[in-house]
Amino acid sequence: MVKSLNYDNLGRSNSFHIDLLVSNILSRQAILPLGEPEEMKTRDRILDVSLALFNSEGEAKQTAVDIANALDMSPGNLYYHFKGKEPIIEALFDRFEEEMQIILGGSHGAVTSIEDNWVFVYIVLEEIYDFRFFYRNVGDMMERYPGLANRFRKILAMKRQAIENVLAQLEKQDIVDVDRRLKAPLVQQMLSTLTFWLSHDLIEGSDRDGPALIHDTVLQFMLLVVPYMGDAGTEALGGMLDRHRDLSKA
Amino acid sequence: MVKSLNYDNLGRSNSFHIDLLVSNILSRQAILPLGEPEEMKTRDRILDVSLALFNSEGEAKQTAVDIANALDMSPGNLYYHFKGKEPIIEALFDRFEEEMQIILGGSHGAVTSIEDNWVFVYIVLEEIYDFRFFYRNVGDMMERYPGLANRFRKILAMKRQAIENVLAQLEKQDIVDVDRRLKAPLVQQMLSTLTFWLSHDLIEGSDRDGPALIHDTVLQFMLLVVPYMGDAGTEALGGMLDRHRDLSKA
Repeated sequence: MVKSLNYDNLGRSNSFHIDLLVSNILSRQAILPLGEPEEMKTRDRILDVSLALFNSEGEAKQTAVDIANALDMSPGNLYYHFKGKEPIIEALFDRFEEEMQIILGGSHGAVTSIEDNWVFVYIVLEEIYDFRFFYRNVGDMMERYPGLANRFRKILAMKRQAIENVLAQLEKQDIVDVDRRLKAPLVQQMLSTLTFWLSHDLIEGSDRDGPALIHDTVLQFMLLVVPYMGDAGTEALGGMLDRHRDLSKA
Repeated sequence: MVKSLNYDNLGRSNSFHIDLLVSNILSRQAILPLGEPEEMKTRDRILDVSLALFNSEGEAKQTAVDIANALDMSPGNLYYHFKGKEPIIEALFDRFEEEMQIILGGSHGAVTSIEDNWVFVYIVLEEIYDFRFFYRNVGDMMERYPGLANRFRKILAMKRQAIENVLAQLEKQDIVDVDRRLKAPLVQQMLSTLTFWLSHDLIEGSDRDGPALIHDTVLQFMLLVVPYMGDAGTEALGGMLDRHRDLSKA
C-alpha cells in the first residue's frame, strides 16, 4: 500500500524511503493472486470493506451478514467468495503479514541515522494503523482466532529483529551507545511501544485522530534512544521535539 | 491482602513496606461491609472462587452457572447473593480499586530510594497479578463492561500520579536527574509497562510463572531510570541485576 504521508515532511534520507516504497509496490504486484479479474476485484472489495468496518466498529460484534450488508451484497454471494468471517480475517492477516514483512525487512542495512529511524518507525506504525482492529485487543483476537496467535508471534519476532537491526546500525555509526546489559530491556520497551500504543490510547480514551496518534507514538519511540546518545542527546532531543511539532501541524 | 512475598528478600527500607502493609490491613478491616457474618462469608467465598476461576480460565467464557458449579452451589443460591456475573465483576473491581488506592497512595513521601522504588513496584505488580483477569485483555474488558472503563481510567490516573510522585522524590534526593522534556515520556513508558506487562507476556506466550514474571517486570521497570542516574547508573545497574538474580532464585 503506497502511503498517503508526504514523506518530504519527515526529513528522511531519500534512498531509504524510496527503496522501501518501490520494493513494496513491486512485491505487491508479484503477489497478486491468480483468478478471474472480476472475481479478484470482488474479493478485494470484500476485504477492503471488511477492513474498514472492523477498524471503525470493532471486529468482535460483526457477523458475516453485517459484512454482506456493508457491501450491499447478498450473504449467499459473500459466501461464494469467503466461507464466513474467519476466512476474511485470515485473508486480511495475510495482507498485513505480507506488508509487514516487506517493511520490517527494509530495516536491514537501510536505517543508518536518527532521521531514517524516524521514517522507519512512522511507516511501521502507519501499517499497523491500517490494520488497527488486530491491535486494539490483541490478546482477545488471539484467543478467539488461535490460528492467528502463532502468526502474530512471528510478526512480533520480526519487529524485535528489526529493532535490533536498527539499534546495531545506529551503534555502528556511533550515534548511540547502549550498555550491553541494557540492550534487551531497551528492545523490549520499544517492542512494547510498537505493540500496545493503540491499546494504550484506547484505554486512556484520548480523542487524537490517527495521524496525531501516530506522530505522538513515533516521538515516544524515538525519545527512548535519547539517553543513549551521550552529549549529542540534548541537541537531538530538541530536534525531535521540533520535528514532532512541525509534523503534527502539517 | 497481606502478600506472600518475603519482603526481607527485597532489600527494602523497613519503614516503607511496614507502613504500607499495616495501613493496608487496617483499611481492609475498616471497609468490611455490613451484613450477617454468615452471609458475608458466603459473599466473600463467591468472590474468591470467581476471582480464581477468572484468573485461571479467563473471564469471557464463564457464565453465572459455571461460577455456581465451581462453588458447588445452586444457581439460585448464587443469584440470592449476586444477580448475575456482572455484579460479581463489579464487586471484584471494588476490591481491586480499594487495594490499589491504598498501595498507590503509599507512594506519597514514602519512596525515597531505588530500593523503596523496587519494593513499591513489586507490590503494585503483585496486586495487579492478583486481579490479572482484568489486565490480560484490558480493552476487551472495558468494551464488555463500559461501567468499568471510567474506573479503570481512574486507576490509570492514580498510577500515573504515583509514578510522578516517586520520580519527584528520587529527584529531590539527587538520585535521578531527568531532563524536564523527557519526564512525561518516561512516565508514559513506565505507566505502559505497569499496564501491559501481562498482555505482553500473554502475546509472547512465555511460560514464566507469576513470581518470575513479576520479578522480570520489576527489573524492566527499574532499568528505565538507570540512564537518568548519571555516573551512579553503572553501579546501580549491576546492583539491580544482582538483586533480580537473587530474587528469581529465591
